[in-house]
Amino acid sequence: MAGANSGPRHDRGEDERNASRMTVDTVNQATGPARALVCRGCGAEYPLAAQHACWQCFGPLEIAYDPVALAAVTRERIAAGPANLWRYAALLPVAADPAARVSLDPGWTPLVPAAALAAAVGLRAPLWVKDDSANPTHSFKDRVVSVALTAARALGFTRYACASTGNLANSVAAHAARAGVRSTVFIPADLEPGKVVTTAVYGGDLVAVDGSYDEVNRLCSELVETDEFADTAFVNVNVRPFYAEGSLTLGFEVAEQLGWRIPPQVVVPMASGELLTKIDKAFSALVELGLAEPPAGGWRVFGAQSAGCAPIAAALQEGTDEITPVRPTGIAKSLNIGDPAAGPYALAAVRRTGGWMAAVDDDEIRDGMRLLARTTGIFAETAGGVTVSALRQLVAGGRLDPAAETVVFNTGDGLKTLDAVAPTAVPTHVVKPSLRSVQAAGLLGEAERVIRES
Amino acid sequence: MAGANSGPRHDRGEDERNASRMTVDTVNQATGPARALVCRGCGAEYPLAAQHACWQCFGPLEIAYDPVALAAVTRERIAAGPANLWRYAALLPVAADPAARVSLDPGWTPLVPAAALAAAVGLRAPLWVKDDSANPTHSFKDRVVSVALTAARALGFTRYACASTGNLANSVAAHAARAGVRSTVFIPADLEPGKVVTTAVYGGDLVAVDGSYDEVNRLCSELVETDEFADTAFVNVNVRPFYAEGSLTLGFEVAEQLGWRIPPQVVVPMASGELLTKIDKAFSALVELGLAEPPAGGWRVFGAQSAGCAPIAAALQEGTDEITPVRPTGIAKSLNIGDPAAGPYALAAVRRTGGWMAAVDDDEIRDGMRLLARTTGIFAETAGGVTVSALRQLVAGGRLDPAAETVVFNTGDGLKTLDAVAPTAVPTHVVKPSLRSVQAAGLLGEAERVIRES
Repeated sequence: MAGANSGPRHDRGEDERNASRMTVDTVNQATGPARALVCRGCGAEYPLAAQHACWQCFGPLEIAYDPVALAAVTRERIAAGPANLWRYAALLPVAADPAARVSLDPGWTPLVPAAALAAAVGLRAPLWVKDDSANPTHSFKDRVVSVALTAARALGFTRYACASTGNLANSVAAHAARAGVRSTVFIPADLEPGKVVTTAVYGGDLVAVDGSYDEVNRLCSELVETDEFADTAFVNVNVRPFYAEGSLTLGFEVAEQLGWRIPPQVVVPMASGELLTKIDKAFSALVELGLAEPPAGGWRVFGAQSAGCAPIAAALQEGTDEITPVRPTGIAKSLNIGDPAAGPYALAAVRRTGGWMAAVDDDEIRDGMRLLARTTGIFAETAGGVTVSALRQLVAGGRLDPAAETVVFNTGDGLKTLDAVAPTAVPTHVVKPSLRSVQAAGLLGEAERVIRES
Repeated sequence: MAGANSGPRHDRGEDERNASRMTVDTVNQATGPARALVCRGCGAEYPLAAQHACWQCFGPLEIAYDPVALAAVTRERIAAGPANLWRYAALLPVAADPAARVSLDPGWTPLVPAAALAAAVGLRAPLWVKDDSANPTHSFKDRVVSVALTAARALGFTRYACASTGNLANSVAAHAARAGVRSTVFIPADLEPGKVVTTAVYGGDLVAVDGSYDEVNRLCSELVETDEFADTAFVNVNVRPFYAEGSLTLGFEVAEQLGWRIPPQVVVPMASGELLTKIDKAFSALVELGLAEPPAGGWRVFGAQSAGCAPIAAALQEGTDEITPVRPTGIAKSLNIGDPAAGPYALAAVRRTGGWMAAVDDDEIRDGMRLLARTTGIFAETAGGVTVSALRQLVAGGRLDPAAETVVFNTGDGLKTLDAVAPTAVPTHVVKPSLRSVQAAGLLGEAERVIRES
């Protein structure tokens, strides 16, 4: 079991022994279409195992698939699947057997038409909000956790853990509770109360770390190498390649919900930057497999960051490939990753597709949350406010084509970040329970003849 | 338009003119299978309109259906519908045209197997949690609001309103925002902060009333008769017969998700008592229509109340038909209706089916919330804690058969009532971002060899 825990800092000979002993194939024959781990940097390949960085170049690893297995997937087979992300199981690096899953069955969230929001931001084309607050723990993290923990179970791990800005903590703790597995979740101590309570209530270990998310993440990278945590899958550390693939399903769903079309423009919030790269990768995969039609001229990918933590957007605007880490500030805590692991790949996707990035400040974030709520009925967390205000900035700045269909992604729920809008989200009137009081409050017209007083 | 507003306190001649001028049939030909309004008390019939009480006996009205129209519904037709409550449109009193709906498309929420919870409460049979926190605004109220407002639009109403204990406020405000319609929502001033913010953020009128829910409700019954609110559908007042039918879909879904079987036992939280009666009515309808199989010996319906507001359970235990209104106390605010309109019908359903009712105190409610979270991964609001602890009490007291399959209903989300569990839902450990600190906190074993210090 200890061998499941393999990372770049181990002695390499031991790692290779472990990887060959504890691969997905040896634990569980049904790995779906996944074939290997491949380095995003140098292209080196490794067997499917709990490994997240390349032993040659220390680059991040991602899943490589068997093209023959993928080619067997059809629209009909997907449509016949369940109304959750497992409809795409044949495109994911996990066993096909539903009984083998560790999952709250997230996904197949609404794609909401948003004509009033389009008008408010100056778009003249259809606008959609992909609303991932509809997931079981109300963020897109349920997707990545379901895929990561399903792989983790196949790899033999018996404890689940993560470093989290909050939403991931909620999701890992809830998944572990349903599966009856111990969890140990690490969060920055200054998280929103909603995210702390919603993790602690599930009864696992919840470790508040007096530091930034980036420090929490580094701590987990060290813990994963200790004997005490040898049986532990840290979803965004040692099983990160599996975890990251869960985000593909957001791209798959948008395309299927549009009638197997890729939208011309998408606006995606960025923390590590991974979500943006995976949505772009999902679109490419669907087109390659003949499952979806690309728009004329291809699609363009736009990134949204909070001004308090915008290292990827800053690199784009400065025209560099070098991402300079920042110390995050600001209310969009779920996006506050100052040293974004997938930043370079997000930059590449945005540049390749002819998109752009925007960063918005805390007042704009609050405005974006209110605007989204009032025009669509969707109450998003701060990250959703980032994306909506970034959309507005990208239209106003001429970066986003106002005549092209656009999808924006809401990744979390406003109930988790109530403090952000609470000061302005208050009753418009306070009355006593009588018609006279209602009339005094101006809710009955001057000429209103009050029938009788209660 | 003013004529849409008809209630028992109007002059009757005027009411009848209004009702005939402003029926669903005259506004919109497609009323689905609904045929008339019928009095639950004396059986008097009225045309489909915005009327909620009988002019003969002041009894509450409910929808009567055309049996021929209902008989045309098949399992296959339902299964071919969308993954939301509109799959049952042919069984609801609304137009069949999706474009005519005012809806966030709620429903088709998970039915979660809960073996660990069953073991914890002493059940030896399958236990399921119907988790309606998965709805768009995270409570079952989205169901009743979608049906009520779809009917309200057909009836010509141009403003949406309600009296609410919180969840209904959230739902009406969100539905109105998506539809681009003005809303005016009335709440008791002492609601949980999460429910106030989540209503106010949508930008409608939010009127905090310094009184109990029952006082808010009475105020709305008066406002509905004023000229100022003549264009306003109060979802749980003047369009209440339509509104109440939305709860049928919870019963429909449970049966369909069990493979078109009615479960032998259900435990349902009670506020007005209406939800319980509608789940029972849904089961009866499915059996009558040949759509679902009843269990051998029939099903039994159990009700759950908070001890701080248990007038229906008290009447059952005292063996009376008279429900004595109470002044509610306690943390389960969404259930705090001291004068429950459907109480007599809930009593009748529980007595007819051989069920029972339980009332649980605030400590038991918190215990129920934690137990549900830890065993199923579902974080329920206080009402869910009521139901889970009532389940436990009903098993312990021998009222509920521990060997019979049971479904419990969770009607809302723990994020809305964070304060209830916040004092105990805190981090288990607080550390600095270093292995040394993690070790000092006891998270690394004694024998752990810390590789290096960060």
